[in-house]
Amino acid sequence: MKIGMIGLGRMGANIARRLVKCGHEMVVYDHDDKVVQTLAGEGMMAATSLQDMHDKLDDPKIFWVMLPAGDPTEQTILTLAGMMGGTEIIIDGGNTFYKDDIRRSKMLADKAVKYVDVGTSGGVWGLERGYCMMIGGDDEVIAYLDPIFEALAPGVGSIERTPDRKDDPISLRAEKGYIHAGPAGAGHFVKMVHNGIEYGLMQAYAEGFDVLKTKKSERLAEDERFDINIADVAEVWRRGSVVSSWLLDLTAIALAKDPLLTGFSGKVADSGEGHWTIDAAMEQAVPVNVLAASLFARYRSRVEHTFGDQVLSAMRYGFGGHVEMPQ
Amino acid sequence: MKIGMIGLGRMGANIARRLVKCGHEMVVYDHDDKVVQTLAGEGMMAATSLQDMHDKLDDPKIFWVMLPAGDPTEQTILTLAGMMGGTEIIIDGGNTFYKDDIRRSKMLADKAVKYVDVGTSGGVWGLERGYCMMIGGDDEVIAYLDPIFEALAPGVGSIERTPDRKDDPISLRAEKGYIHAGPAGAGHFVKMVHNGIEYGLMQAYAEGFDVLKTKKSERLAEDERFDINIADVAEVWRRGSVVSSWLLDLTAIALAKDPLLTGFSGKVADSGEGHWTIDAAMEQAVPVNVLAASLFARYRSRVEHTFGDQVLSAMRYGFGGHVEMPQ
Amino acid sequence: MKIGMIGLGRMGANIARRLVKCGHEMVVYDHDDKVVQTLAGEGMMAATSLQDMHDKLDDPKIFWVMLPAGDPTEQTILTLAGMMGGTEIIIDGGNTFYKDDIRRSKMLADKAVKYVDVGTSGGVWGLERGYCMMIGGDDEVIAYLDPIFEALAPGVGSIERTPDRKDDPISLRAEKGYIHAGPAGAGHFVKMVHNGIEYGLMQAYAEGFDVLKTKKSERLAEDERFDINIADVAEVWRRGSVVSSWLLDLTAIALAKDPLLTGFSGKVADSGEGHWTIDAAMEQAVPVNVLAASLFARYRSRVEHTFGDQVLSAMRYGFGGHVEMPQ
Amino acid sequence: MKIGMIGLGRMGANIARRLVKCGHEMVVYDHDDKVVQTLAGEGMMAATSLQDMHDKLDDPKIFWVMLPAGDPTEQTILTLAGMMGGTEIIIDGGNTFYKDDIRRSKMLADKAVKYVDVGTSGGVWGLERGYCMMIGGDDEVIAYLDPIFEALAPGVGSIERTPDRKDDPISLRAEKGYIHAGPAGAGHFVKMVHNGIEYGLMQAYAEGFDVLKTKKSERLAEDERFDINIADVAEVWRRGSVVSSWLLDLTAIALAKDPLLTGFSGKVADSGEGHWTIDAAMEQAVPVNVLAASLFARYRSRVEHTFGDQVLSAMRYGFGGHVEMPQ
Repeated sequence: MKIGMIGLGRMGANIARRLVKCGHEMVVYDHDDKVVQTLAGEGMMAATSLQDMHDKLDDPKIFWVMLPAGDPTEQTILTLAGMMGGTEIIIDGGNTFYKDDIRRSKMLADKAVKYVDVGTSGGVWGLERGYCMMIGGDDEVIAYLDPIFEALAPGVGSIERTPDRKDDPISLRAEKGYIHAGPAGAGHFVKMVHNGIEYGLMQAYAEGFDVLKTKKSERLAEDERFDINIADVAEVWRRGSVVSSWLLDLTAIALAKDPLLTGFSGKVADSGEGHWTIDAAMEQAVPVNVLAASLFARYRSRVEHTFGDQVLSAMRYGFGGHVEMPQ
Repeated sequence: MKIGMIGLGRMGANIARRLVKCGHEMVVYDHDDKVVQTLAGEGMMAATSLQDMHDKLDDPKIFWVMLPAGDPTEQTILTLAGMMGGTEIIIDGGNTFYKDDIRRSKMLADKAVKYVDVGTSGGVWGLERGYCMMIGGDDEVIAYLDPIFEALAPGVGSIERTPDRKDDPISLRAEKGYIHAGPAGAGHFVKMVHNGIEYGLMQAYAEGFDVLKTKKSERLAEDERFDINIADVAEVWRRGSVVSSWLLDLTAIALAKDPLLTGFSGKVADSGEGHWTIDAAMEQAVPVNVLAASLFARYRSRVEHTFGDQVLSAMRYGFGGHVEMPQ
Repeated sequence: MKIGMIGLGRMGANIARRLVKCGHEMVVYDHDDKVVQTLAGEGMMAATSLQDMHDKLDDPKIFWVMLPAGDPTEQTILTLAGMMGGTEIIIDGGNTFYKDDIRRSKMLADKAVKYVDVGTSGGVWGLERGYCMMIGGDDEVIAYLDPIFEALAPGVGSIERTPDRKDDPISLRAEKGYIHAGPAGAGHFVKMVHNGIEYGLMQAYAEGFDVLKTKKSERLAEDERFDINIADVAEVWRRGSVVSSWLLDLTAIALAKDPLLTGFSGKVADSGEGHWTIDAAMEQAVPVNVLAASLFARYRSRVEHTFGDQVLSAMRYGFGGHVEMPQ
Repeated sequence: MKIGMIGLGRMGANIARRLVKCGHEMVVYDHDDKVVQTLAGEGMMAATSLQDMHDKLDDPKIFWVMLPAGDPTEQTILTLAGMMGGTEIIIDGGNTFYKDDIRRSKMLADKAVKYVDVGTSGGVWGLERGYCMMIGGDDEVIAYLDPIFEALAPGVGSIERTPDRKDDPISLRAEKGYIHAGPAGAGHFVKMVHNGIEYGLMQAYAEGFDVLKTKKSERLAEDERFDINIADVAEVWRRGSVVSSWLLDLTAIALAKDPLLTGFSGKVADSGEGHWTIDAAMEQAVPVNVLAASLFARYRSRVEHTFGDQVLSAMRYGFGGHVEMPQ
């Protein structure tokens, strides 16, 4: 199939490359012309503008928007919506808030444009391993785009099969690495929860390694201190333990390179998904202590102290004359 | 009654003063002779050693130990236990771990010494307001010591009476500000939970004031920012609101003096009680998310970053090539 | 002043009564005519419709809307907006989401209608004790309405004065029990955070009393069990302890009446404010572990088990062949 | 080597089997003679008592104790200690609290008995996949036992190698699936933290799947509800996503079999390790909000409501006249 890729950052460029490798044709555009030329040099068709891309695509024109969520994506989709003529398809492959998908999908339906949202996981490893995709949109358009998703997905590979899985084509999609999660928004919703879980998993490891690391703390009696080789722990847990995971593999890689992680200061960003997952949980009245605590740990990592901490100290001074700890 | 006070820090000295004011006789001892002399100058009897105090007390000799929990208290009680002859009473008024009370009480019972544990709340304000006391020990000895506790307690005062309270003497103790919570250890157990709750209350205010304070953050759209007068908020909440409390009064005092709390850096200590409350909750399988989170916020306030934060950053770099936030 | 009160539930009716008691004139309306008649019987002017109320008020007409947040309030305000002519004032005294205030305020400004949001705390006790109020709106209109707020507020009363408070009229408002927190929305924002804190305080007490209660659990060694008189603990903590508060007073009242709280099954509702406080915290990147955990405890209290709990059991069965605990 | 295995439950029996398969000789004992006979039928040497096992082993006699932590393990080790003569080795392969290891190790050192603690992960899958082992004890004895650990470990297998790992024999142990974590107690300490992390990971998935599941809740506006195929989500996340893990594989297996998990009521047990991990974190002043919340979720899953929930309801009734939610 012929697909227009808008936004050629690491994710967009690699998705385009993987699609080309699987025999699809790509028309590519980015506001940075240099990266367009790079991909043109790899055999893709360069577009000089959204309009130019529109002209170069065949009906039904397929646009894959791979831009930062929020304004950049919104503006691009509005521009595309303005130039639509026949039956077109817009795929938002970014990290869009699922309620924006629902809104846009309704807005575009009035123009007979099909809207598809694709949440992808796999990060920088996707080019090689394939992208795990969670997709939202109408049945018909998802079926039409199936060759694209199959090309991008990791495929069945050598992963041991889950017993009791069914063999029909829809069920098999999941085993190949992509699912049609529901109507527009459902793809990004599942991806959002995926990231919420990701935060929780990461924080569980982080806290555990912290307990291992500080076991040599001078707070402890000398005969209860252990000086544990953290890199070896991460490595051994990859081997048959209950906590083995890809995130642990990554931790083992980082610790093997530098057990002190001196290159990382520990100020941890969060993208919107953790926040939105808590929002969704609250709308649905689901207790999510772990997911919320994971998000809050990141907030806390980014400031030296909170005003709340000062309030605590002020109260302690008030009732007990306590002065603060030496700094 | 005649009572020996061992340990004349802020708490011990003020308890002695309040007892004298109510007509009791005090024999006082501290390893710092200066403070002994100060209290002697206020009309108390100075003791030069534990043995000297022992000699100066009448039977049954009453020792009130008001020292830091752990070794100082333990050593003093062991020394006292060694010199016991007749029927003696040792009161531990410090912040002892309740399991130490249970252990000591059994140990001293063999020597016919009565052990009483008293948890006190009220901090530096107790001299004036009276001390709220939670007491553990045998019925008989607590009954014997009743005049001491009644003297130290705030008394009924002007606090509005709780309906449905009974009028028997035991029930009335609670209204005067002290209770016999159970056998040895029960006093410090209730005090421990008191402090666990205290941490939770404090953290609830801290987080709330933090949300108010950061409402002027530049992260927000300009028309959603508010520049709220935090000191006025604390003050108004003292007036008929559901969150009025003594801790809020203290917060209002601190904020009226300096709304920025510039004198406080926000490194918050914790005494053992928060920790022990979580321990007790785990022994009893009680979910205590709020009490635990309050304790952990204090731990976090005392370090610049955790190793766990670095692990998070290392993972993010691993799967997404994310670099850390600028510092 | 002459004020129209729309919505005569417990809060609206009592606010009207307190205003009348302080010499203001009330025009009252409710969709339930019976309650209108009751208040008419107490000397207020009955209105048969919003239009009728509009006719009966003098310029500038003051409408106090005291309805459930969301649709009922929104519809009423839209109706009032439709009938506006001169300079009118709409006060939303309910539990409105502060972003709705901001939106409405802008919308009404186009019609030269002044919008004021008032968050009130004090619940069913406000008629007698006065209402603690957090107010949002323009300086001018708040100044104009000052006699109303002063009448409703508790007043300085016998509460000990906070040192270092200033004596200017604006500062004194806080001591009387009301503040002008900022532009439209700021009143409900501060009230929202108030309720967020309230949840946290309540949960801290709840967890602490749970630890006390279960200290007699058979999980514990017999000599570490205590059978603690919980009602006495609540009562004694009212007397000079660090955790004394109005919420503790209420707990003491409930426990004095029935120490087992048999009348309460423990399914705990939440109004929107706890949820919105977490939302605000996330927008501002503030870690609020305690406030969030308090909200989640309420969600959890309302279901017998979560799907998440089942997922845990399924995993445990998967890796360890663990069967679930007997039920 | 010749090893005595005491305790032939699922873990003990399978460890014995894996050792035999790798050429070691086993003497086996259990208080249940039937299981001893079963293993004897598989070619192992049956022992009729601990003394009989002692007699049948060669110097240095190696005892592997695989019993429930606490009393059963303690009593067995004391009995073994009583019959020791030459140089013997006791391996505790159970889930012992690491402080018990430290204590026992000191006690046995006086008798010239070597104590080794082995934490194992892998559960019922270990016979086939091998056991991931974390080992504590003296260098010399661990080196001597190396053939046993190498036999039990999964081995390097087909898992992709972590870059930057070193090739010396000690470092290679981790890649084979076992580590010498430090002196006695260190093995169980690392295993304890492993389980703490495990709880956190599990709870992160549990909360996430709960959010997905309840997305069809009637609390939501109809056009924001999704009816998501949870089994497909678990399956697709196994394929190249950031949250892929063995625990996710197990979840996918359970959901493929029954997407409603109707066989699981959701009452979730906890072994001691989660509790001990929080204890260790508190001793070391490490904030572990996620690990603690995971443990508390299990406590909460096992009771219908808490007394704390009732306290909340009682307060709400007190300040607002709120009645509880319909049940």
